[in-house]
Amino acid sequence: MPRHNVPDVVVRRLPLYLQTLNHIAETGQQVVSSTELGRTIGVSSAQIRKDLSYFGAFGKQRVGYEVDHLRAELKRILQLDEDWHVLIVGAGALGHALANYRAFEEQHFVIVAVLDNDPAKTGQPIGPLVVQPMESLAELVRERHVEIAILAVPARAAQSVADQLIASGVRSILCYAPITLSVPEGVHVAYIDPVTTLQTMTYYL
Amino acid sequence: MPRHNVPDVVVRRLPLYLQTLNHIAETGQQVVSSTELGRTIGVSSAQIRKDLSYFGAFGKQRVGYEVDHLRAELKRILQLDEDWHVLIVGAGALGHALANYRAFEEQHFVIVAVLDNDPAKTGQPIGPLVVQPMESLAELVRERHVEIAILAVPARAAQSVADQLIASGVRSILCYAPITLSVPEGVHVAYIDPVTTLQTMTYYL
Repeated sequence: MPRHNVPDVVVRRLPLYLQTLNHIAETGQQVVSSTELGRTIGVSSAQIRKDLSYFGAFGKQRVGYEVDHLRAELKRILQLDEDWHVLIVGAGALGHALANYRAFEEQHFVIVAVLDNDPAKTGQPIGPLVVQPMESLAELVRERHVEIAILAVPARAAQSVADQLIASGVRSILCYAPITLSVPEGVHVAYIDPVTTLQTMTYYL
Repeated sequence: MPRHNVPDVVVRRLPLYLQTLNHIAETGQQVVSSTELGRTIGVSSAQIRKDLSYFGAFGKQRVGYEVDHLRAELKRILQLDEDWHVLIVGAGALGHALANYRAFEEQHFVIVAVLDNDPAKTGQPIGPLVVQPMESLAELVRERHVEIAILAVPARAAQSVADQLIASGVRSILCYAPITLSVPEGVHVAYIDPVTTLQTMTYYL
């Protein structure tokens, strides 16, 4: 269960810690210091120690972290030790790219369906699936135990689709549309917007 | 020119401030308080005042910010008052989605070329362009004044392509491959990785 006193920015760093530990584990290394971990990720060792202290005491002073133990703990904290069922709405160019992205399934995110409201798209193959109509949404969420939806629709349709997702019981939405969604308490939205990211990058140019 | 004492997290919030101000301006509203701005974005008013104070004094006490003035200042700070030339490497499903994404050009990010090392893909149409071979890279960067590259290649190819981009003079890379790139000082990399974002979301489920 999530702890409510942990800042979002800390939670956002945890997957980076886990991924870096996974890379370290692949090399056979068994213990890592917060200094080494921080250098690889680009954050200070103090930050790593502080972030992890929200969840318990994982390291040993002057020794460091046991790589496999910390990986297991981070997976448990992030609830990544089980499969999650994910649904994509939008079978355009982005929907196709997402449906074909193999890294999801490798990391326990199983795409169980792709939906679109365009009758010309439904029934068409998309990655290993077939596009289904929006009318299937409620049944899919219920029967396939969908916990996460990826919104790959144009901005003008995003709020209406989000409302339908929430009405169907979805509580986590990853939104690719460049708008801010209005959602009720208890629904978590994350955004991926390359324009916003590019706008950050120009600052450094 | 970027100021070197501004934390990255502050810079990453500036585009959100700008986008929210753009939405507010569309409604005809001319002045906004930090409280109202914060409520819309989901950060505290104190955070907004602190973030903006890195760049000067923009608001009036008890009045708030003049919307158009703050928009213009944020555009200037983020260097968004001019067009940027962007190149995409990788003409797979993701490259197609990116080449077709109209929001880039609307926000002054002009996609000038898409490159791929697969001879079967070069010469094929992609969005409004035609896929070009990797051999064109150096010439394109020089002649089209490319400042930013988007890396839409598989993880195993990403470092090698990044090395070629940097050798050609590119100093900003937006990386979609799920790896951490090694780059020399002075090169800025931002990452978009839906798996990392999903891994953050499961914490809240």
